[in-house]
Amino acid sequence: MTELKMKALVFVSPGKIELIEKPIPKPGPTDALIRITTTTICGTDVHILKGEYPVRPGLIIGHEPVGVIEELGSAVQGYTVGQRVIAGAITPCGQCGSCLSGTHSQCGGKPMGGWRFGNTIDGAQAEFLLVPNAMANLSLVPDHLSDEEVLMCPDIMSTGFSGAESGKVKIGDTVAVFAQGPIGLCATAGSRLSGAGLIIAIDSVERRLKMAKEVGADIVINFKEKDPVQVIMEITKGRGVDVAIEALGAESTFQSCLRVLKPGGTLSSLGVYSHDVHVPVNAFYAGLGDQRIVTTLCPGGKERMRRLMEVISTKRVELKSMVTHRFKLHQIVEAYDLFANQRDGVLKVAITP
Amino acid sequence: MTELKMKALVFVSPGKIELIEKPIPKPGPTDALIRITTTTICGTDVHILKGEYPVRPGLIIGHEPVGVIEELGSAVQGYTVGQRVIAGAITPCGQCGSCLSGTHSQCGGKPMGGWRFGNTIDGAQAEFLLVPNAMANLSLVPDHLSDEEVLMCPDIMSTGFSGAESGKVKIGDTVAVFAQGPIGLCATAGSRLSGAGLIIAIDSVERRLKMAKEVGADIVINFKEKDPVQVIMEITKGRGVDVAIEALGAESTFQSCLRVLKPGGTLSSLGVYSHDVHVPVNAFYAGLGDQRIVTTLCPGGKERMRRLMEVISTKRVELKSMVTHRFKLHQIVEAYDLFANQRDGVLKVAITP
Amino acid sequence: MTELKMKALVFVSPGKIELIEKPIPKPGPTDALIRITTTTICGTDVHILKGEYPVRPGLIIGHEPVGVIEELGSAVQGYTVGQRVIAGAITPCGQCGSCLSGTHSQCGGKPMGGWRFGNTIDGAQAEFLLVPNAMANLSLVPDHLSDEEVLMCPDIMSTGFSGAESGKVKIGDTVAVFAQGPIGLCATAGSRLSGAGLIIAIDSVERRLKMAKEVGADIVINFKEKDPVQVIMEITKGRGVDVAIEALGAESTFQSCLRVLKPGGTLSSLGVYSHDVHVPVNAFYAGLGDQRIVTTLCPGGKERMRRLMEVISTKRVELKSMVTHRFKLHQIVEAYDLFANQRDGVLKVAITP
Amino acid sequence: MTELKMKALVFVSPGKIELIEKPIPKPGPTDALIRITTTTICGTDVHILKGEYPVRPGLIIGHEPVGVIEELGSAVQGYTVGQRVIAGAITPCGQCGSCLSGTHSQCGGKPMGGWRFGNTIDGAQAEFLLVPNAMANLSLVPDHLSDEEVLMCPDIMSTGFSGAESGKVKIGDTVAVFAQGPIGLCATAGSRLSGAGLIIAIDSVERRLKMAKEVGADIVINFKEKDPVQVIMEITKGRGVDVAIEALGAESTFQSCLRVLKPGGTLSSLGVYSHDVHVPVNAFYAGLGDQRIVTTLCPGGKERMRRLMEVISTKRVELKSMVTHRFKLHQIVEAYDLFANQRDGVLKVAITP
Repeated sequence: MTELKMKALVFVSPGKIELIEKPIPKPGPTDALIRITTTTICGTDVHILKGEYPVRPGLIIGHEPVGVIEELGSAVQGYTVGQRVIAGAITPCGQCGSCLSGTHSQCGGKPMGGWRFGNTIDGAQAEFLLVPNAMANLSLVPDHLSDEEVLMCPDIMSTGFSGAESGKVKIGDTVAVFAQGPIGLCATAGSRLSGAGLIIAIDSVERRLKMAKEVGADIVINFKEKDPVQVIMEITKGRGVDVAIEALGAESTFQSCLRVLKPGGTLSSLGVYSHDVHVPVNAFYAGLGDQRIVTTLCPGGKERMRRLMEVISTKRVELKSMVTHRFKLHQIVEAYDLFANQRDGVLKVAITP
Repeated sequence: MTELKMKALVFVSPGKIELIEKPIPKPGPTDALIRITTTTICGTDVHILKGEYPVRPGLIIGHEPVGVIEELGSAVQGYTVGQRVIAGAITPCGQCGSCLSGTHSQCGGKPMGGWRFGNTIDGAQAEFLLVPNAMANLSLVPDHLSDEEVLMCPDIMSTGFSGAESGKVKIGDTVAVFAQGPIGLCATAGSRLSGAGLIIAIDSVERRLKMAKEVGADIVINFKEKDPVQVIMEITKGRGVDVAIEALGAESTFQSCLRVLKPGGTLSSLGVYSHDVHVPVNAFYAGLGDQRIVTTLCPGGKERMRRLMEVISTKRVELKSMVTHRFKLHQIVEAYDLFANQRDGVLKVAITP
Repeated sequence: MTELKMKALVFVSPGKIELIEKPIPKPGPTDALIRITTTTICGTDVHILKGEYPVRPGLIIGHEPVGVIEELGSAVQGYTVGQRVIAGAITPCGQCGSCLSGTHSQCGGKPMGGWRFGNTIDGAQAEFLLVPNAMANLSLVPDHLSDEEVLMCPDIMSTGFSGAESGKVKIGDTVAVFAQGPIGLCATAGSRLSGAGLIIAIDSVERRLKMAKEVGADIVINFKEKDPVQVIMEITKGRGVDVAIEALGAESTFQSCLRVLKPGGTLSSLGVYSHDVHVPVNAFYAGLGDQRIVTTLCPGGKERMRRLMEVISTKRVELKSMVTHRFKLHQIVEAYDLFANQRDGVLKVAITP
Repeated sequence: MTELKMKALVFVSPGKIELIEKPIPKPGPTDALIRITTTTICGTDVHILKGEYPVRPGLIIGHEPVGVIEELGSAVQGYTVGQRVIAGAITPCGQCGSCLSGTHSQCGGKPMGGWRFGNTIDGAQAEFLLVPNAMANLSLVPDHLSDEEVLMCPDIMSTGFSGAESGKVKIGDTVAVFAQGPIGLCATAGSRLSGAGLIIAIDSVERRLKMAKEVGADIVINFKEKDPVQVIMEITKGRGVDVAIEALGAESTFQSCLRVLKPGGTLSSLGVYSHDVHVPVNAFYAGLGDQRIVTTLCPGGKERMRRLMEVISTKRVELKSMVTHRFKLHQIVEAYDLFANQRDGVLKVAITP
């Protein structure tokens, strides 16, 4: 079988990706091989394409797999070939010091150590994918859920929700979510699901603000029309918000989060920062404001996936409408072009081999 | 009695303080008047003296009172005149939205709103002090504890300990404490008391490093001799620390904290920052390191004081040795001069009227 | 004004309550007098009526006030006469050791110490009510909310929601709520608001099960038709629930909660128990199941009320439909009769003077 | 090698254990085989011997291994043969839903599912031991620590400390620990390490009370001489304790814990109960006391072991003095006899092959 080939999208060099043929990998004892049925492209993949986040040339990219078990490693128990599964973008081992401490995304004690797919090992934009530590990571998809219904679980939904979770949003909280791309929209949905009493969403794209309202925002602010800091302070009568979620990865939104945060509030940061971040001493209350700044990398592992699929099953959220465009795997370079340039109102794409 | 006068140290203008006579204040219905028996000078007071932290001219400064109840407001119950008490530097009302949410130091929902003494109302460096919200703030001193034994409770001990508490130091954690002034030493002691498995203290003054060992540090690093970041990464075999406590208020130590912090770790910041803080993107792991940055303003209120005195009573810590110099109130300007210039190995002074 | 009289319902002796005239009370320095505009009857009041929960003869009962500020104590600031307010059933002082530790319902360190209205001081089933510690307890009602819309906040909603909060229900949890009276229904709504992925509600009254579905239950079980323990273990495929909420106060439901609880799960108990509770050693996993049993007494204080009204304002929940019957104060004995005997499908009554 | 034999202690029938020869097991892909250098006998083993806790005849018992890696499964990475290691009594897989949720002791979602050694698989009272999920469970012993110094880590210390940890003992808390056997002594030490301000230890054996003082108790109560509930309420001036730890597994101590618990306090239960537990309605404050009852099964996994060894390395606790008697493996039946009958002041025994 080692001679068998599959189609896969690899990073070639900054600005260049290519759909090529690669051998179908063989699972080691604790791995599983899954045949991809649906995957998608993430904003992070665009960073990789542009060379802003370096990966090794030849690596298959993508980290959001829906598929079917093709082959199981010799030590993998509790699964059978043919089961439909997802795996999170982050694939913790469950057994290192970090994982045993509950910090699964930093698996191995290395920064972002749990992020392997399309980063340190071959990823999901291919016909087949090797899932490491399969027993910790393969999560069965209930029959009544379609591929597209669970396509957001591996990354976007897990990350976005974690913005509310790490921010410890609780019943009655006022929450501001800065940026309403796919992650921000999920942070808005996650805040709603966590009991936030008032949710304020900020973006500049009307389509996204409209969708923000659909997934849970009470008030939306187009920052090209109004200063969100000022508006939020007015809405909250000078009190500020309990939790501010940063879902972009820019210094300006990070600072705006701080500026609308009440003393004692939490800035929950989801963004991927390319540059240093300047913390203004006054917005930081000179270090005396009992504030918390928390960052979170997409929680993974099969239990996380199970829980996310549970809230989709009971219709607490409906995220498949985030899939605005569909492509076949052989069109994936074209899909990147559309997605990277944010053309045609694209939010998320679905890729099927 | 309104004609009665007392001696009090007031802020006059940047660089100038003066011991003057002021009327002894009269308690309102929820206040208490206490006769100060011992107080001290805080680093913050030096900032006020220098004009770095602005207060209104004529304000009595100081926020660390030990004294005896002289008079109680009409609505104050549960106390009697003559009882020996302390009050925290922070005097929460207990009844506003912030206090009812457990964020007592940000009383009234205002940044640092709970810090009143020597900031927004007259402070403790005087013969008498008016304590607002007396029922929330007066804490009886057990007979077997001397004034000097409890003198660190109102601020230094409460603040320092909170570095470990807000950092959620737990059994077996590795903790680094940057700066070993009075606050840092108490952060070291608090980390020890919280079960830290290994405590690393950093400073450049040998006397302070020696004292750090006495209160709980396992390893001390003189940053003038060695690069603490490098040494800590070696000691922890590249793992980094679970909790890094900043006890100075400088960008450099803040950044060093981040650089020694394991992915998933907590930077617990106690320092008062005079300037913006630059967060290096790599030390911040691009926002993907599951890190937490928490700031804490000295927890106050009578229950906090009771608990701190309890651990002094049972000899879990011994902090009175931090009092290196003693002055009478009429010598207080002289005491400031010594303390502000850190002469003669001064750590903390005791001032008695 | 001391000669002025008001109508008030007092406990006379077990089985006997009476609407009598009593003097309108005068506020002390930290109290407020409010004129009641709407109140209700709680299951606890029925226990009092029956003599099952003893209070002193002559005490005005009731603990769920909506009203208008009539007069303020001399030391009360931040309010004006004429403002429309609610106060929680529990009125913490905010200033004792318990309150400063965040255990407001056990104010003063006494069991249930925060529950004063209609228990240790005169209550709300009257034309006027004295609110102690007014600054900690009076919460302004937004103009756009009617009396009936906020009538559940002081007790039912605060208590019911706390079942989910103390149980730490989180996104994706499976929750079972035993009993769907007013408290249980609010526990169901609170679980939904906290992100529960699957909510199972148990009762024997079809009307209540129907309402449970309306406020958030996914699955309802009529325990007269099926054994809820068996059904829940089937639904969860033997896994059990993450959180089981007891909303009745009976040994049988307490034990059922334990029997459906997964190892590592939480039993969140809201019920008021009249008798000892037997914990079966096998359902308790011999003490080795990493289970938690938590009890909660209705969180009070003005911040809690503000938050509850916030989620009503943004239509996260709609509880006024729980008011099934309306009475004037002069008909209150009749209202008790209806409510105590659970006639005519009564859920909650509204009483207006 | 399958023909090679080892000595091992097996359960035969209630009241009967036997040292027999069994084949040395072969590690599967994720297992490790360790050669035991030191082990011990636990109170639970005595329950097994007596037939009070049923295991299958022929099972090797014991769950506290110190040893040397003899052979590694094919999929085990990061270890080498010859390394000195310990494994916890509880050996979580790290990869199931329970483990990924942080409930490692209930591995597999089964009650006590993580407890395998000497319960569901062969245990440590033998010359060799197979460790399942080796990568999650083998923890290297630092060279400077002796076998006896780390012998308490796998169970006694981990369990005892967890009493304080699950009880969330914090700086200044008052803690009562009921029963001062090995577990209770470690709960006392763990409370001290967690910052408890006042620790009260209860037992009836003077030797144990003396040792309780050595490991951290401030006050000891011999319950044969005085009623601990009454004494504790006097000591705390009627306030009760913040945390009460049950370290015996009896209804009487469970109830005493409740009776000394302040409203809002936590009963942290470590005991293994053989019978139902009756909760008195008054000590339970009718379910309205904001109390928590938490049970904990010995935390395991290599990270836990590493942390426990860390606090031994830095001399935060010294537990090897708990080893009062030493035996060779061939004398183990004799050791059981001594230990089970608590003769000669035995606290813990060390068994070396």
